[in-house]
Amino acid sequence: MSQYRVLIHANDEKGLVFKVSSTFYNYNLNILSNSEFVDKENNKFFMRSVVDGDINPYELQQTLKDILPESANIEVIEPKKKNIIIMATKEMHALGDILIRHEAGELEANILAVISNYSDLGSLVSKFNIPYVTISHEGLDRAEHENKVLECLREYKDIDYIVLAKYMRILTARFVEAYEDKIINIHHSFLPAFIGANPYKQAYDRGVKIIGATSHFVNNNLDEGPIISQEVIHIDHAYGWKDMQRKGKDVEKIVLSRALKLALEDRIFVYANKTVIF
Amino acid sequence: MSQYRVLIHANDEKGLVFKVSSTFYNYNLNILSNSEFVDKENNKFFMRSVVDGDINPYELQQTLKDILPESANIEVIEPKKKNIIIMATKEMHALGDILIRHEAGELEANILAVISNYSDLGSLVSKFNIPYVTISHEGLDRAEHENKVLECLREYKDIDYIVLAKYMRILTARFVEAYEDKIINIHHSFLPAFIGANPYKQAYDRGVKIIGATSHFVNNNLDEGPIISQEVIHIDHAYGWKDMQRKGKDVEKIVLSRALKLALEDRIFVYANKTVIF
Amino acid sequence: MSQYRVLIHANDEKGLVFKVSSTFYNYNLNILSNSEFVDKENNKFFMRSVVDGDINPYELQQTLKDILPESANIEVIEPKKKNIIIMATKEMHALGDILIRHEAGELEANILAVISNYSDLGSLVSKFNIPYVTISHEGLDRAEHENKVLECLREYKDIDYIVLAKYMRILTARFVEAYEDKIINIHHSFLPAFIGANPYKQAYDRGVKIIGATSHFVNNNLDEGPIISQEVIHIDHAYGWKDMQRKGKDVEKIVLSRALKLALEDRIFVYANKTVIF
Amino acid sequence: MSQYRVLIHANDEKGLVFKVSSTFYNYNLNILSNSEFVDKENNKFFMRSVVDGDINPYELQQTLKDILPESANIEVIEPKKKNIIIMATKEMHALGDILIRHEAGELEANILAVISNYSDLGSLVSKFNIPYVTISHEGLDRAEHENKVLECLREYKDIDYIVLAKYMRILTARFVEAYEDKIINIHHSFLPAFIGANPYKQAYDRGVKIIGATSHFVNNNLDEGPIISQEVIHIDHAYGWKDMQRKGKDVEKIVLSRALKLALEDRIFVYANKTVIF
Repeated sequence: MSQYRVLIHANDEKGLVFKVSSTFYNYNLNILSNSEFVDKENNKFFMRSVVDGDINPYELQQTLKDILPESANIEVIEPKKKNIIIMATKEMHALGDILIRHEAGELEANILAVISNYSDLGSLVSKFNIPYVTISHEGLDRAEHENKVLECLREYKDIDYIVLAKYMRILTARFVEAYEDKIINIHHSFLPAFIGANPYKQAYDRGVKIIGATSHFVNNNLDEGPIISQEVIHIDHAYGWKDMQRKGKDVEKIVLSRALKLALEDRIFVYANKTVIF
Repeated sequence: MSQYRVLIHANDEKGLVFKVSSTFYNYNLNILSNSEFVDKENNKFFMRSVVDGDINPYELQQTLKDILPESANIEVIEPKKKNIIIMATKEMHALGDILIRHEAGELEANILAVISNYSDLGSLVSKFNIPYVTISHEGLDRAEHENKVLECLREYKDIDYIVLAKYMRILTARFVEAYEDKIINIHHSFLPAFIGANPYKQAYDRGVKIIGATSHFVNNNLDEGPIISQEVIHIDHAYGWKDMQRKGKDVEKIVLSRALKLALEDRIFVYANKTVIF
Repeated sequence: MSQYRVLIHANDEKGLVFKVSSTFYNYNLNILSNSEFVDKENNKFFMRSVVDGDINPYELQQTLKDILPESANIEVIEPKKKNIIIMATKEMHALGDILIRHEAGELEANILAVISNYSDLGSLVSKFNIPYVTISHEGLDRAEHENKVLECLREYKDIDYIVLAKYMRILTARFVEAYEDKIINIHHSFLPAFIGANPYKQAYDRGVKIIGATSHFVNNNLDEGPIISQEVIHIDHAYGWKDMQRKGKDVEKIVLSRALKLALEDRIFVYANKTVIF
Repeated sequence: MSQYRVLIHANDEKGLVFKVSSTFYNYNLNILSNSEFVDKENNKFFMRSVVDGDINPYELQQTLKDILPESANIEVIEPKKKNIIIMATKEMHALGDILIRHEAGELEANILAVISNYSDLGSLVSKFNIPYVTISHEGLDRAEHENKVLECLREYKDIDYIVLAKYMRILTARFVEAYEDKIINIHHSFLPAFIGANPYKQAYDRGVKIIGATSHFVNNNLDEGPIISQEVIHIDHAYGWKDMQRKGKDVEKIVLSRALKLALEDRIFVYANKTVIF
C-alpha cells in the first residue's frame, strides 16, 4: 500500500469531481485528503488528492486521462525526495534555515549543491557535506557569468527546484526560461511594494509601519512572478533601514522555507501568474 | 435556478465523495464550492458544498439519504435570513458592531430583539428600531432571573442563534440545553487561557505579551464550549489591565462578528467539542 | 491637579532631555509617561510626556521655550475633545465604527457633521443626531464640487481633523493645503502597494497572499502622505476581489479608527513625510 | 568613544529622569536611545539608555548611585559577548536556529557548550566546533541526573545565560535557584494555556484555532516564570497534533532566538514575575 498525490488541472465543467471520485472508488483507493478549487473567472478547475492504495500509478493516470476532458492536466505522483539546487550570495540566514531543516529531515529534498557568486558561505555549507560552488561574477558581464552558472547547473540532472536563498543577482530571460516554474525566490518586501533593489531602504524612506517578505516563482519580469507565500511584521518609527533588514531576516527565511516545503509536497499549481495552493 | 448549501456529516467510509458527486451530477447541479475533511482519529467525514440548479431541495436531501450510509446527517439548505437574539450587558462595542453590520446588510440575519440585564444599551438599540428588553437581575437569584429571560425568549419562535455580545452573566445548564449549539459567546481571552472572570486582569497579573479573544458555542462548562474563532494582539509591559481591556475590544468585536457570519452562512460543524469550519 | 500632554520637536542636541526634565522637576510635575526618539539621519528630536500637576500650561510652555533651542516646537496641551468632520461616500463600515465608538464615549471628539456626495448614509447618521450634509457631485466638475464642500467646511470653526471614512473622491491640492496634516484617510491596501483605484482588484490580479489597509495623512500626492497605521490579513487563491473587499472592511475600519484615536490623543508627530507615534 | 548601556531600576519618585539626564549631560554623553517606564501599581521606575562618550563606566555608575535614591539598582554595561550554555534534548530546530545565528555573527554571545541528555544532536553541534556534552538520564533519578548537569556547568565560569532549546526535562528548584533569572526556556504554547507535557496534544484536544510559543525565564514553578516573548499562528480543524507540532517549530525557534537576543542586548528587566522590555 502506497500513498500517491493526484494533481488535476482542467477547464471546468460539470462532473469532474464525480469522474475523479468514481475512478478512485473503482480503484478501491482510500482518500486521505481532497482539495478542490474552481476559478470561475477563468473557468479553471484544480484538484489535489492524496490517496492510499495498492495500485499502478501509471495506470491510474491513464484511466483518469481517458475519463477526463482532453484539456485536463493530470499527474499521479509517488512522494519522494526532490532534487534542489540552492543559489545564494553572502547572507547566511535563508540558506542556513534550509540547511538545518534538511539536516533535521524536515524537507523531502536532496540538496545537490549550493552555488554562490562569493566564497563566503562555503565554510558553512561544507560543514553539511554539500558541494559548494563559487562562480564569481568579477570581471564578467551578466551573460558571461550566467553562462557559467548554467553550465554548472547542466552537470546536475533532474533538478526539480532552484532555490534563490537571497541570491542578489538578476537572472536573464534565458536563464528563467530554462527553468520555468522551477525557480523559487525570496524577495524582502511584501510585493508588489518595493520591487527592485534594497526594499528595506525604500520601505524606510516611505515610512511604512509594516515590512514583509514574499516567496515567488521567478519569471521574466523582476519580482513579478507568481506569489507563493507572504508574511509581514510590524515596525515603528524607531527602525532605521538596517534595523528593518535585521528584523526582516526572520520573515525572509520562514517564508522561503515555507514556499520550498509547499513545492516539495506538490501543493502548488501555477497559472495566470498566480498560484493555487492546497 | 437557486443556490443550496449541502452539509453532510457521516462516519467515514470509501466512496462518500463519489456518491455525493454522482448525485450532484445526476441532478445536473453546478458545484460552486466543495470542501471536505476527514477526521481520521474519530473516523468522521464532513462535506459542505454550494450547488446551483433547478431542483427540489427536499428531493435532493432524500436522494442523498437513500444513497449515503445511515449514519449520515444531511442538510440541504436554501440560504435565507436566520433569526437571532442578541444578549448584552452594558458594553457597546460588540453589540454596536453587529448592529452596524446588520444595518449595512452584511448579515444574513433578522435581529429579533436585544435582551439585557441593564437598560444602558436601550438608547443605542432603539435607534435601529430593534426591540430592547431589559430584564434586571436585581433582587433575583440566578434561576429566577434566567426564568424571566427564558420566558422572554419563548415569545420568539424559530430562534436560530442567540449571540452573547458581552453578556456578563453565567448561564445555567438548563438554559444552555434549551438552546444547544445555538448560543455563541465571545470570551475576552485566547481560551483556554484565563477562563472565568476578568481575563484581562488575569492576563495582566501573569505578564503575558499577547492578549486575545475567543468566540465559541456555549455548553455546560463555562468557557469550555467548541471554539469557532480566535484572534490575538500584541501588548507590552506598558499595558495596565484597563489598557488591555480597551485595546481588546477591537479583537472581541471582530472575532464575535466573524463567528456569527460563519454560523449564518452554515459553515460550522460541531462535534466532539470542536468545530469544523469551511 | 490636571493632566497635560507636552509635545516637543526640535533639532537634536545634547541636553534636551535634561532641560525638559529639569523644567518638569522645577514645576513639581509628576511624569505619567515619557517617550523620546531621535532620528539620527535627520538630526531630529521628538518627545511626548504626559505630566500631572497644578500649573499654568502657558507658563510651562513659555519656560520650555526659554530653556530649549530656538528650533524647538513646543506644545503643552490640556486634553479635551477635538472637533472632527467625517467625509464618506456610500460604504457604512468605517463610518459606522466611528459612530459607535463616539456613542460609547471611546473618542475624545465631537463629530460636527458627516459630509457625503451621496444621501445613502444619511439615515444611519441621523440616528445619532449628527448633522448629515449631502453635497452631490452630479453635474459638477471636480473644482465646483470641492468648492461646495470647502464652503460647507468653512461653516464649522476649529476643525481639528477631517476623517475620510471611505470618501471615494480625490481631493485637489487646494483642498489638502487648506487642511494640512489635518486630513486622515483610509486606503484599502498596504501602501505603497496598489495606489489608486480599486486596490482589491489590483491585489486580485497580482495574486497576493495578503491584503491590508493603511491610514495616512493626505498630502498632494494621492496615497503618498505620511502613514499612521497599517494592518494586513491573509487570504488565499479562493478569494475573488469582492471577497477581498468584504474581508478587507474589518481591517479598514479598525485601522482608520486606530489612526483617529492616535491623532485625538496627540500621539503623532508628522515630518519628512513620515510619522513618529508615541 | 565607547557605547554603554545604562540600566536603572528604582522605586519611583519625582526627579529621577532629571537626575539621570543631568548626570549624562555633565558627563557630556550623547544619548543614543532612552526608554522609561513607570509601573504605577507597584511604584517602580525602569530606565534603559544607550549612551556614547569617553568615560569611565565605573565612575558613571558611582555618580548615578550617589545622586539617585538608595533603592536604585544601577548598571553601566559595556557591550560585549556574553557566555551562554545551550541545553537541548533531541529536536534540532531551536538549537539549529541559534547555531546559524551564532555562525552568522548575529548574536553577542559565545556558546560555551551544548549539553543534552541524548547524543543525537552531537553530530550537528560538532560541525560548528562547539563542545557537545551528553549527560544521559538513563538509570538515574532526577536529582542524580541534575547533579551531573550541575557539575558539568560548574566547569564553565561566568555563564551569563542558559538557554533551554527544547530541553524536555523538568528542572528542580535547586537547579533554578543556582541560575536565577539566567535560564531562558521555550514552551510550545501561548502560556498560560497548556502548561505541562505535550501542549500540542492538549491544544488539539481543546480544538483551538491558534497555537503558539512562549519564551520565559525559568523559576520554581513549571512554565510559570516571567514571560519574555510570545507569538502565535493560526490553524484549523485539519491540523492533527503532529501537524501542529511541525508547524509550531517555526514559531518556537523564532520566539526563543528573539528572547535570547533581548537578553544578550540587556533589554530585559525582571520583577514581580514579569518582564519590562525596552
